[in-house]
Amino acid sequence: MFLTILFTFALLFSSSQASVQDFCVADLSLSDTPSGYPCKKPSTITVDAFVFSGLGVAGNTSNLIKAAVTPAFVAQFPSVNGLGLSMARLDLAVGGVIPLHTHPGASEVLLVTQGSILAGFISSANAVYYKTLHKGDIMVFPQGLLHFQLNSEKIPALAFASFSSPNPGLQITDFALFANDLPIELVVKATFLDKAQVKKLKAILGGTN
Amino acid sequence: MFLTILFTFALLFSSSQASVQDFCVADLSLSDTPSGYPCKKPSTITVDAFVFSGLGVAGNTSNLIKAAVTPAFVAQFPSVNGLGLSMARLDLAVGGVIPLHTHPGASEVLLVTQGSILAGFISSANAVYYKTLHKGDIMVFPQGLLHFQLNSEKIPALAFASFSSPNPGLQITDFALFANDLPIELVVKATFLDKAQVKKLKAILGGTN
Amino acid sequence: MFLTILFTFALLFSSSQASVQDFCVADLSLSDTPSGYPCKKPSTITVDAFVFSGLGVAGNTSNLIKAAVTPAFVAQFPSVNGLGLSMARLDLAVGGVIPLHTHPGASEVLLVTQGSILAGFISSANAVYYKTLHKGDIMVFPQGLLHFQLNSEKIPALAFASFSSPNPGLQITDFALFANDLPIELVVKATFLDKAQVKKLKAILGGTN
Amino acid sequence: MFLTILFTFALLFSSSQASVQDFCVADLSLSDTPSGYPCKKPSTITVDAFVFSGLGVAGNTSNLIKAAVTPAFVAQFPSVNGLGLSMARLDLAVGGVIPLHTHPGASEVLLVTQGSILAGFISSANAVYYKTLHKGDIMVFPQGLLHFQLNSEKIPALAFASFSSPNPGLQITDFALFANDLPIELVVKATFLDKAQVKKLKAILGGTN
Amino acid sequence: MFLTILFTFALLFSSSQASVQDFCVADLSLSDTPSGYPCKKPSTITVDAFVFSGLGVAGNTSNLIKAAVTPAFVAQFPSVNGLGLSMARLDLAVGGVIPLHTHPGASEVLLVTQGSILAGFISSANAVYYKTLHKGDIMVFPQGLLHFQLNSEKIPALAFASFSSPNPGLQITDFALFANDLPIELVVKATFLDKAQVKKLKAILGGTN
Amino acid sequence: MFLTILFTFALLFSSSQASVQDFCVADLSLSDTPSGYPCKKPSTITVDAFVFSGLGVAGNTSNLIKAAVTPAFVAQFPSVNGLGLSMARLDLAVGGVIPLHTHPGASEVLLVTQGSILAGFISSANAVYYKTLHKGDIMVFPQGLLHFQLNSEKIPALAFASFSSPNPGLQITDFALFANDLPIELVVKATFLDKAQVKKLKAILGGTN
Repeated sequence: MFLTILFTFALLFSSSQASVQDFCVADLSLSDTPSGYPCKKPSTITVDAFVFSGLGVAGNTSNLIKAAVTPAFVAQFPSVNGLGLSMARLDLAVGGVIPLHTHPGASEVLLVTQGSILAGFISSANAVYYKTLHKGDIMVFPQGLLHFQLNSEKIPALAFASFSSPNPGLQITDFALFANDLPIELVVKATFLDKAQVKKLKAILGGTN
Repeated sequence: MFLTILFTFALLFSSSQASVQDFCVADLSLSDTPSGYPCKKPSTITVDAFVFSGLGVAGNTSNLIKAAVTPAFVAQFPSVNGLGLSMARLDLAVGGVIPLHTHPGASEVLLVTQGSILAGFISSANAVYYKTLHKGDIMVFPQGLLHFQLNSEKIPALAFASFSSPNPGLQITDFALFANDLPIELVVKATFLDKAQVKKLKAILGGTN
Repeated sequence: MFLTILFTFALLFSSSQASVQDFCVADLSLSDTPSGYPCKKPSTITVDAFVFSGLGVAGNTSNLIKAAVTPAFVAQFPSVNGLGLSMARLDLAVGGVIPLHTHPGASEVLLVTQGSILAGFISSANAVYYKTLHKGDIMVFPQGLLHFQLNSEKIPALAFASFSSPNPGLQITDFALFANDLPIELVVKATFLDKAQVKKLKAILGGTN
Repeated sequence: MFLTILFTFALLFSSSQASVQDFCVADLSLSDTPSGYPCKKPSTITVDAFVFSGLGVAGNTSNLIKAAVTPAFVAQFPSVNGLGLSMARLDLAVGGVIPLHTHPGASEVLLVTQGSILAGFISSANAVYYKTLHKGDIMVFPQGLLHFQLNSEKIPALAFASFSSPNPGLQITDFALFANDLPIELVVKATFLDKAQVKKLKAILGGTN
Repeated sequence: MFLTILFTFALLFSSSQASVQDFCVADLSLSDTPSGYPCKKPSTITVDAFVFSGLGVAGNTSNLIKAAVTPAFVAQFPSVNGLGLSMARLDLAVGGVIPLHTHPGASEVLLVTQGSILAGFISSANAVYYKTLHKGDIMVFPQGLLHFQLNSEKIPALAFASFSSPNPGLQITDFALFANDLPIELVVKATFLDKAQVKKLKAILGGTN
Repeated sequence: MFLTILFTFALLFSSSQASVQDFCVADLSLSDTPSGYPCKKPSTITVDAFVFSGLGVAGNTSNLIKAAVTPAFVAQFPSVNGLGLSMARLDLAVGGVIPLHTHPGASEVLLVTQGSILAGFISSANAVYYKTLHKGDIMVFPQGLLHFQLNSEKIPALAFASFSSPNPGLQITDFALFANDLPIELVVKATFLDKAQVKKLKAILGGTN
């Protein structure tokens, strides 16, 4: 009798099983689409596709901003494809800063797990919201708004950011303005910064023109 | 003059016609994406792609649960791809039951067309909603919540389920727990069921470990 | 010990239970929003909110089109609010017809449960897809496209339509053109119909101007 | 020191840069999906992909409807793919008309930049909303509803339509009914138009059967 | 007989008519929701709700940036609520500039209707895309990315922007940094700008701290 | 001149500022909607609305499952409303377990910050994916699928879960089956569990009937 039940169950929904899309682990070798990457075949997926250890490793903060960001976006962690979320690790050494930036495609929640971080964002109405976050605090940064994080203490800080998209994007204002070939004259016109200031930061960040 | 109008109309919107995506019949030979399968070329589609006769055939209920589910999901009926809905047929012989299950990706509306069905679902707040449905009754099962259907009469029952996704998914709790290689010890820890109970159902449903 | 476990579980997730939105039964007394109606409080909801018997009653086809549509949209069946689907019943007496119409807000799957129905839709590319559906057949009508259903046999036909929205909308072309105060001259200009034809149908359908 | 900063920034987010999907310019050579076309590789994209000059050219209105529509949908302007909007240019010579039509996949906002246009739409409740628009006026046409535009003055009119989808679709009622092989008998049954009227318009618009 | 048909039709879909949400004109007196404002009752809406003349009036460019933006977002034009698009008018006098900014909630298509505009945006990968647009040209600015527009000729320029949201938002970088009470020290740390530069622009733009 | 610029900027976009919906902090006193709660007025919001310290406090694991979940969903942290994500803290004492459960409305990413956790989920195809996660590891649990977490070491474990919805929901299978008034007979029929097993767990978990 047991065998009969087994047989029955095995047949019961057999035709639908093959097509169920519980998950869609990204096949990064194919072209992206507006909804994300095409899926690898479920039969080729093991548990390792759903686990990522890269956020367990401290980023290298031996640099001038004394900070590092380690992403677990779809490019690094393909199993978040199509699931509407992703993560990143933030290491901020003493004096470290994640400069002013936006995520064009996602809202963010930041969780501080070590040290303290002074974090803030600016709304479209130009209102400023900033506060010092301590271990265990979380803070929301709504989609597309300028924000920043600074280590505000004398010990290294560690935090983890969660995003509402597998591919939140990241636009650092300094990079956008000074680290490319956007002509100095256009930067000056579009920002009202002094020409000397623009030249100085272009030189630092490797921009040309 | 008639020819002139014809000519005019033919030209009028000619450049846009080729690109209109009124529908996106799934090309199941290509990789799925988070939004569904890539589309077959519209020029290859005939009316037969939009019609499915598989729900007109009774499922085989000569089994121990005395029930059968016949899906018309995207895998069986590719023209629902991208359109946000699909269907299935439920046959319940006398004493038949569709055991506790969820659809991870869709809400359901069940329409009883023959006999009577005792159907119910359980909310996240653990509230139970169940009722005997008669011919012509419809009942909603919100997305992702556990639910079940039992034939509650002495005649066979027939019902049709509509889903809010071309690919609603289906997770039968008994299968998830007992019909695979999930170790008995893990099942016991995660469910508080007795070890003997777990072993018994694993044996019935063909699970290992 | 049992009591202890009970106590523990009861506390475990207590703070989240109250806010879980498993469903959102429409409070039709409040203003609609782009995502649907505000929700009634879950504590006021019984199983009867999730069950609707209105589709079990034949529509009155003693009229000139010999057909009737009985909707179970959000206005009639508030528990579909926010769940992305709804249903309707179609009764077509011998010779009955559901005239040319669109659903601006949803795709449709039609299930024939009695008799035969000649159904068709027209794509943006002006391609025509029509076929006679028999008992048990389902057919897809993609969102926003013109379609119609005719009883094609000598016995009454019965069908159930499922929609990919709680509020699919319904625009019958004849009503839109002839059953209101749209000036005859505008109808003529916008449709190239003869003035006499427009006048005739306006008279039949009660249009003015 | 400058070089050091440069080096630091270049490394900082290096792993995430390659995967950012700021945009998804359509690769029209691949199969469409429900969310739009697969993306061309960002490295192959220049500014020219984001600029379209086709709307700067007047459409040819030397025809009987004295009107022309020039689309900038995803097929003509691939960079709108995945971005949720597109445009079109409307030229209406004196006496010109854009006949009754719907966009199954988008709402529209029309901007008049020259002349005057009498525009209107009809709701599901068969309410008619029409008005003469002058230069600088904009008017909304909600998704899927029948609407039309007529030149209401003695000078040519020019307008630009914006749509809430890269691929709004376009179904002209006259084309759908009369410009294909939909049998006359079916048109008559589905619309209540006189057979002679149907035949006449089929002849004009090139329909068969 | 005519009366009979009329009567029949009037009854046919009567129960669904009242609930059809073809549109959802914003009731700005009620609280906004994540999907937009609650709807005004359809019975209170006339065609004037769907027409807006505010974009026909030139903005006042007698100011130092020699530019003006006139929005037709949901706050000014409530009928776009829930429809996924909106518009704005841009006036740029000779030498005028719309400074660097983002729209956190929408992609944009810009249509130039008079003069020439040098427009550009910067991607997350810091690639710069800019070009001079002439009358009739349209250009896409993907959601959330920094962009700017300059009058590049010796005559006034006029353009109309379409957005993929009824409420696209607008964050001008200069305002976000210098026109509020964000402490100078934080601006310096988050942007690497010189303190003197920050002070100067804060003074110009009215920022404090 | 500075004053003039200030004045100009202040006017420039004045009309649009008031309506920008950068965020929608939930007004929990109003009725929920399918897209989330209505928004509090932005002018009443301070930075404290965007910061939550509740996840910094260890949950009480002095109970029989030796575990606790502390949510930061919309009910506890109203600023995630409408932003598509939320978080929770998991404390697992030695031997602790989060029993088999689903989140009907969200996918989850779990981050282990202390100890080790044996976590797993089961797909619709009944495939089992489980692994021991160590400090710094993240694991994905796709929406709606059954999953569990066990402390697999001899020290307490701590983890933080991120969800792709402000209101992910939580359905614990044991609660759904045994902690309410679902009749024993129905549980037996819908699960194939032995009656004695059902009675035993109902007694433990406080279920009736």
